[in-house]
Amino acid sequence: LSEKILKRNLPSESTGRGLVQVFTGEGKGKTTAALGCAIRALGHGLHVYIVFFMKGDYPYGERNTLAKLTDVTIASFGQEEFVFRDNIKPEQIKQANQALISAREAMLSGKYDLIILDEVNITVAFNLIAIDEVVNLIKDKPQNVDLILTGRLADPRIIDLADLVTEMKNIKHPFDKGREARRGCEY
Amino acid sequence: LSEKILKRNLPSESTGRGLVQVFTGEGKGKTTAALGCAIRALGHGLHVYIVFFMKGDYPYGERNTLAKLTDVTIASFGQEEFVFRDNIKPEQIKQANQALISAREAMLSGKYDLIILDEVNITVAFNLIAIDEVVNLIKDKPQNVDLILTGRLADPRIIDLADLVTEMKNIKHPFDKGREARRGCEY
Repeated sequence: LSEKILKRNLPSESTGRGLVQVFTGEGKGKTTAALGCAIRALGHGLHVYIVFFMKGDYPYGERNTLAKLTDVTIASFGQEEFVFRDNIKPEQIKQANQALISAREAMLSGKYDLIILDEVNITVAFNLIAIDEVVNLIKDKPQNVDLILTGRLADPRIIDLADLVTEMKNIKHPFDKGREARRGCEY
Repeated sequence: LSEKILKRNLPSESTGRGLVQVFTGEGKGKTTAALGCAIRALGHGLHVYIVFFMKGDYPYGERNTLAKLTDVTIASFGQEEFVFRDNIKPEQIKQANQALISAREAMLSGKYDLIILDEVNITVAFNLIAIDEVVNLIKDKPQNVDLILTGRLADPRIIDLADLVTEMKNIKHPFDKGREARRGCEY
């Protein structure tokens, strides 16, 4: 199936082959950078699909803003509660896999130019989804579609397949000084 | 003047003291991370002022998207042509200083919760504006206002004053392989 759709999606008027981009590292700005890319893409008339793999990280501020824009579809998975690496629950695995299925369907639908998989990297690192599934997703990417994968601890196999990888490195962070997260950019 | 306005801006219903954030480094995602923060802040009903210090870097894609949103004001300075460190033109210095004045006025106006100074770091590094001017701007920041400063080569004095500094580190970039920038997220 995916190969058939892949052929249909071969770029005709496209400006080039879509990129696989990764925003990783411990620093701030991974999800916001992906959202900035979404804003940029929307401004060019492109269609964007954003999958949030961890609802706990779901950026409620953006929901209001993105809701005002057309051509962007948001899918949110996972539970509110924090995911602990050593205490993974079956429901968390289920949600993460549903998120991946949703991303794959969007990617192969021919409807979207940019698919953002927010926090997918950490989902892999925590073994909520199999790395092979993500590798296959990237390999099945139609030529003219852009993928952005965010989250800490990006798997070396994902980095290897990516065209563009940026590490957000924490040089200085207010949490170091014990300051609370504040409405606006922290959440 | 600024002290008077500063007092008027003391947070009453604010959720905390505004942060000074820096996105620097050679990697991708500095401007887009700042824009993502803008989207997030707008979603919380905050007011955002974005100053683009270098028109050459002006993200034309976002203009269309941001134009659809209320509560965000954009000011763009500089010229289309690329700024060469060893061949700075008087008009470039003039534009950069006007950009800084515009940021200061917005910051002290009491109208905005978040001021983004896009590419201000490189403007300082190229001596288009004096580091002292930016240091004074940060020091004059009203308590409840957030500042975001982006651009490569952030000055150590700016990093020192900032609450949160993220370095975008280039791990892998398609330009390394000679690929052209493409519409969407590259510009």
